[in-house]
Amino acid sequence: MKKVKVTVPASTTNLGSGFDCLGLALTLYNTIEMEFSGEKELVIEVEGEGKESIPRNETNIIFPAIKMVFDRVKAKPFGLKIKEVNSIPLSRGLGSSAATRIGGLVGATLLLGLSLSREEILKMAIELEGHPDNVAASLLGGFVAVAEAEKKPLWVKLKVPDNLKVVVAVPDRGILTEKARKILPQKIPFQDALFNLSRVALLVPSLSQGLWNNLVFGTQDRLHQPYRSALLPGMMDVFEAALYAGAKGVFLSGAGSSIAALSLNDGKKIGQAMQKAFSEKGLKSRFMILSVDNQGVKINE
Amino acid sequence: MKKVKVTVPASTTNLGSGFDCLGLALTLYNTIEMEFSGEKELVIEVEGEGKESIPRNETNIIFPAIKMVFDRVKAKPFGLKIKEVNSIPLSRGLGSSAATRIGGLVGATLLLGLSLSREEILKMAIELEGHPDNVAASLLGGFVAVAEAEKKPLWVKLKVPDNLKVVVAVPDRGILTEKARKILPQKIPFQDALFNLSRVALLVPSLSQGLWNNLVFGTQDRLHQPYRSALLPGMMDVFEAALYAGAKGVFLSGAGSSIAALSLNDGKKIGQAMQKAFSEKGLKSRFMILSVDNQGVKINE
Repeated sequence: MKKVKVTVPASTTNLGSGFDCLGLALTLYNTIEMEFSGEKELVIEVEGEGKESIPRNETNIIFPAIKMVFDRVKAKPFGLKIKEVNSIPLSRGLGSSAATRIGGLVGATLLLGLSLSREEILKMAIELEGHPDNVAASLLGGFVAVAEAEKKPLWVKLKVPDNLKVVVAVPDRGILTEKARKILPQKIPFQDALFNLSRVALLVPSLSQGLWNNLVFGTQDRLHQPYRSALLPGMMDVFEAALYAGAKGVFLSGAGSSIAALSLNDGKKIGQAMQKAFSEKGLKSRFMILSVDNQGVKINE
Repeated sequence: MKKVKVTVPASTTNLGSGFDCLGLALTLYNTIEMEFSGEKELVIEVEGEGKESIPRNETNIIFPAIKMVFDRVKAKPFGLKIKEVNSIPLSRGLGSSAATRIGGLVGATLLLGLSLSREEILKMAIELEGHPDNVAASLLGGFVAVAEAEKKPLWVKLKVPDNLKVVVAVPDRGILTEKARKILPQKIPFQDALFNLSRVALLVPSLSQGLWNNLVFGTQDRLHQPYRSALLPGMMDVFEAALYAGAKGVFLSGAGSSIAALSLNDGKKIGQAMQKAFSEKGLKSRFMILSVDNQGVKINE
């Protein structure tokens, strides 16, 4: 029987100013294997991150992704055997759900031998995920700017210089994306919108061209981080600690709880400083030193 | 006696989504000549655009710009003879005041033999102008993204492909920038901020890399054009006419009243279509087919 395997990168999004429109794929991966077992039952195995909590039935978020692809050709997703090997921590703003959804969509496409464009995959992924930044970065890799216009995703994929490291401090405690979205206001001051707008305009070319001294300003934000800091004790202290330790920019990774810092050196000192700042607020954390994944989803058939 | 001459490009700013942070320098110029006359009086000559209306005394906006440079070295701007030859129409959203201010700042710097960095010139220009986009484009040339952080201007200058034309429809009637700013709201929906944010993130790399099909979406805006359309009858009709005639994107130039369209062909058809749409709303206009000036302010000593 045919068996497919896809490897999907984690992602850090928003990058401070670029709420819901900027993402970086990271060298941390979930792999998804998928085959028809010959049985009627759905079988899901989970290893690594989330192995205690991720459901082994149709409520696993991978299933609606798979079903969406099967539905396109009116096929039934019966008798699937799925194996997830997860390295991306859950509810930490590192795009684990996006990676799993991309894995489900791409895996199902391969399993059925369909030919779907990246745009079609991305469109389905956005429908499942509700926002485009994580799924775009996981699918495409690199540094992605993404917008939705007339229900269609539009993106530009940029490379970033190879020497960039992304140091991610991952607290013990997660934040649910839903909660982090509910805390945002319905209306904001006009000036706050302009603040972020000018920073995004600066950040996009600065990050792709390695104009490092612009990043500390380009990652500044008034649209989400000030509100979300209420959900993450010590956020501002961790930001300060990272910058003091030499980070070129620092921001809440996605909806949190992780904080990501951009570094041009090995990043260890920055990671330790962030960990220490979290710990002073009573929050245990670990840190990971990652690079930017330039490939996006990988197919290992 | 020393005589200096500077040539300063016009600019179109905002580009739809990039309110107050994006600008393009255009191949349309004001030139400023400046010398010490040996007399005590200030003498200002004006030719070309605005020759009937621009004041010939210290209330001319060039004077505070010159004085700002003289003040830095505690010099007195006595006995100056200034000649302005203007091709940039006034109050039409094409950066005529920004160009004049840059001309005054750079001219005075040369006249006094000072050595000021582009950052220092830009900082002074922003202080005079109140917003950074036009002055940054006029000073630096090209496609400029600019932000202010901690009272300091930060910018990235990008090139655009040589084949891009900017077709500018210039109505008979101007709009005062002050009025166009007062019409903007104090608070806006969060979703409108995200709308522009994602479009700016898309527009900046798309315009610099010539990803032309993204521009029609990248130039969309919810922050200023919908409000300002009240000041410019037929704005949306002119937008539609330009796109229908083949424009890759179209937007209110600065605070208006001009409308700028991006074109990959000679642009004549687009210009005529815009002119016709304006005329159907009772507004006379002319159009100019320009390119992007990649040099910025030019010194012709």
